[in-house]
Amino acid sequence: MPEEVFCEHYQRAIELIGGRWTGVIIRALLGGVHRFSDLKAAIPGLSDRMLAERLRELEAEGLTRREVLPDMPVRVEYHLTDKGRALSGVLDAIVHWLESWSETAPSPLMQRD
Amino acid sequence: MPEEVFCEHYQRAIELIGGRWTGVIIRALLGGVHRFSDLKAAIPGLSDRMLAERLRELEAEGLTRREVLPDMPVRVEYHLTDKGRALSGVLDAIVHWLESWSETAPSPLMQRD
Repeated sequence: MPEEVFCEHYQRAIELIGGRWTGVIIRALLGGVHRFSDLKAAIPGLSDRMLAERLRELEAEGLTRREVLPDMPVRVEYHLTDKGRALSGVLDAIVHWLESWSETAPSPLMQRD
Repeated sequence: MPEEVFCEHYQRAIELIGGRWTGVIIRALLGGVHRFSDLKAAIPGLSDRMLAERLRELEAEGLTRREVLPDMPVRVEYHLTDKGRALSGVLDAIVHWLESWSETAPSPLMQRD
């Protein structure tokens, strides 16, 4: 039996990305949604509390950063870091898998910035 | 704001794959580990109950199948279906992301069958 089938780094990564709401928040950020209220509006069923918790978690993992824009009133935006943006390859692989194996193809992600 | 940032099929897929232990079980199956006791031995911290639950879930999703081999005593093996095996692209993308962005590269998955 190969020892290499288990890898804690892989486990941590896949369970982070696949955590409840985390994958959809990353997809929304990739799709150009950056404000708290817009993220909440874009993701049905996501509560304020859960969105705030997930954004804190993503920031702690170095996948997103919080930007405070000096408007009046101050605006806060959430953006993927380079490390977070690099997850698009994983998301693309999931969409490819769904397109190949699901009867219901995923919605295309039209906008990226 | 693009409507397409949310896709329930994508959400369901990523949260299934990223569920606690699910990703590591799929990786172990891809790596050639097929028996309950070997899966348990290969994945530190995974309980009998959780492994059984996850294998049932994967089978219900059409990602694995349970094979009963007519040995004495009877042997049971768990194998990925074609749909489950196709997830290797997603797993590869995660490993690629880790290799690019993590200080600690993932262990290579040596054996596939």
